[in-house]
Amino acid sequence: MRVNYKKELEEAARNMILVHKPHTLIRMILRSIVRKVKVEHAGILLYEKSRNSYIVTITRGKLGTKIPPGLVRLDPHSPIIRFFSQKENAPLLDDGALLLSKINSILQDRESLVGKEDTEKLLLATKFQMKSFDTVVSVPSYYRDDLLGVLMLGEKANKKAFKREEIDFFVALANDVAMALRNAFLFEGLQLEIERNKKLFLETTMALSAAIDAKDHYTRGHTMRVTEYSLAIARRISNDKNEKPDGKFFEDLHVASLLHDIGKIGVPESILNKNGSLTDEERKKINEHALMGAMILEPIRDLGSVILGVKHHHERYDGNGYPEGLSGEKIPLIAAIISVADSYDAMISDRPYRCAFTKEQAIVELERCSGTQFNPHIVKAAISLYRRGEL
Amino acid sequence: MRVNYKKELEEAARNMILVHKPHTLIRMILRSIVRKVKVEHAGILLYEKSRNSYIVTITRGKLGTKIPPGLVRLDPHSPIIRFFSQKENAPLLDDGALLLSKINSILQDRESLVGKEDTEKLLLATKFQMKSFDTVVSVPSYYRDDLLGVLMLGEKANKKAFKREEIDFFVALANDVAMALRNAFLFEGLQLEIERNKKLFLETTMALSAAIDAKDHYTRGHTMRVTEYSLAIARRISNDKNEKPDGKFFEDLHVASLLHDIGKIGVPESILNKNGSLTDEERKKINEHALMGAMILEPIRDLGSVILGVKHHHERYDGNGYPEGLSGEKIPLIAAIISVADSYDAMISDRPYRCAFTKEQAIVELERCSGTQFNPHIVKAAISLYRRGEL
Repeated sequence: MRVNYKKELEEAARNMILVHKPHTLIRMILRSIVRKVKVEHAGILLYEKSRNSYIVTITRGKLGTKIPPGLVRLDPHSPIIRFFSQKENAPLLDDGALLLSKINSILQDRESLVGKEDTEKLLLATKFQMKSFDTVVSVPSYYRDDLLGVLMLGEKANKKAFKREEIDFFVALANDVAMALRNAFLFEGLQLEIERNKKLFLETTMALSAAIDAKDHYTRGHTMRVTEYSLAIARRISNDKNEKPDGKFFEDLHVASLLHDIGKIGVPESILNKNGSLTDEERKKINEHALMGAMILEPIRDLGSVILGVKHHHERYDGNGYPEGLSGEKIPLIAAIISVADSYDAMISDRPYRCAFTKEQAIVELERCSGTQFNPHIVKAAISLYRRGEL
Repeated sequence: MRVNYKKELEEAARNMILVHKPHTLIRMILRSIVRKVKVEHAGILLYEKSRNSYIVTITRGKLGTKIPPGLVRLDPHSPIIRFFSQKENAPLLDDGALLLSKINSILQDRESLVGKEDTEKLLLATKFQMKSFDTVVSVPSYYRDDLLGVLMLGEKANKKAFKREEIDFFVALANDVAMALRNAFLFEGLQLEIERNKKLFLETTMALSAAIDAKDHYTRGHTMRVTEYSLAIARRISNDKNEKPDGKFFEDLHVASLLHDIGKIGVPESILNKNGSLTDEERKKINEHALMGAMILEPIRDLGSVILGVKHHHERYDGNGYPEGLSGEKIPLIAAIISVADSYDAMISDRPYRCAFTKEQAIVELERCSGTQFNPHIVKAAISLYRRGEL
């Protein structure tokens, strides 16, 4: 069956543009070369900035013949890379491809090499390198003047020479590869930046909330533990409901747990660290921390759900909590989860007025207050986690 | 001169993949259609998710003939959009393009329309809509099953009918447009997410630092003002040096200014808010805030330079500052800038032990301490800002 290379190429280019994982992209391209042109093996030497080297990352083709991926690393001074990086070698290419057969014929034409010892040396070294990779055609991929990669192709399965249109196909593909790779790299860069920003945001929130924790002698480490418990409970609930966890909910819960006590910044240290029981006035002052936390975060538009978590984490299921006396399902889920995690950690930690509960005692207490203080679904999830040794 | 459409198309596709601003991309495509095929005008109806409508955003061609951009908004029920959204209309297209001439010939063939009143109605309405846009060819762009846009083309400048290869060019271009648009939209989405994340990070840092500020009765609003002054000084310095401001430096300076006093979280309120002069012991406690701030942020890898700013904002140019007694250019620039901004704001604000300086007095004081307490370059920048009324 004849292959319509123009059509193949158009289709390849069209698919490439939407593949933003460089490795997936390369795998697709190599697969299409091996299948359409029927070469024994195909690989790509790909530039890796962090190592300033060209690496064979992925290869396709028959076992035994193909270049082992990951093992080959060429620095910019190795012959084949130098060959493609020097503009003056362009006339030695065939419409953009370097053929082993062409190198051989140049090297045999002794006269043409007189006075060109450097070129001869480079050709000999390049030939040796291509042979070590069992490669008969190499095609460079440039983006502007940068060599992004080199396509390394083995012989055709039928051992015949490559046809003109096949070489053209490789060269056009290598050009498309360069653009698509550049696109994919840009994409990957943006995605990494998003990850980095998210991490920075969480880490900073964590550091600041830990510092605020540290002010309150009795809650050191409390915020980190509440965050851990909240996330575990949420995962348990979404498993029980057999629902795919909603990424946004988990992100919001994470931040809300870290910031749930942020309002304590506004409570005087003398009250926070008081040894002995609190007066009504002092208790009132402490209770204000929920509303105060919401007020601190209020100007931040993207923290809508987070603010609900902070504001309502002291509401009770029976409506007797604060600041708004919400009850039942009117309490936002994010706040109801933090409430259970917060109380559990408070119970198993020492407090000025009593020593800590055991985990078992704290779970009994959660159960006792299920339906009055706590949302029963969430208590159920906490108990189930405890039974599995995960709380 | 004959146009090689295959070549044009390959080149267009190759350029498109790296244009990540949808509007730039569309402008490029329309320009190439108008120039290569010589049509009187070309426009694109582009789907906008937020308005669930197709909008003519950009048009190219002769004034007077082209569709006015921005004014035309078609909802999904308008004839031309419905036409391309219904799969059953595919047979009425010519290799993917809808020709006004074809609509006319179908409508004239009365017999073929018997029992197909709906189709006839839609064709009549579509014809009317194409004519109102002065359009003779419409080409849809799909991504999977979604209609992303419709190319709307006027007559050829020479009034002749479009050739087969020209229509093919439009259709192929419309396909590429769909992929490139999808790519550009994805890109835009990632970039928006990066912006949103950065904003969230800054806003949260701002809210928390403002809350910590609020604990210290004498510094309310101090952090926001120091941040403003620091950034203004840095802009002034990079203007003076005629350097393009380094985005990363400004971002770090922004965050470091917001967090410079974060270590005050660890200073007892009784000392922070003391009325009257401080004992040596209390002064020592307050001075610890620089090191304490650096310790709080220490686990956050991406905040390397920020931490330097927080840690060293009380160093002095003559080496008599704290915590490390660094001097001269050994003090990181980020910290030296915050030091001047911080002192300036402290001077022009009321303090328990003295009333505020005027701005003029504060500037005289900065100048007096230039080269001893402060880096002279930075004082110079602050003075220049003050003279322009920008500090």
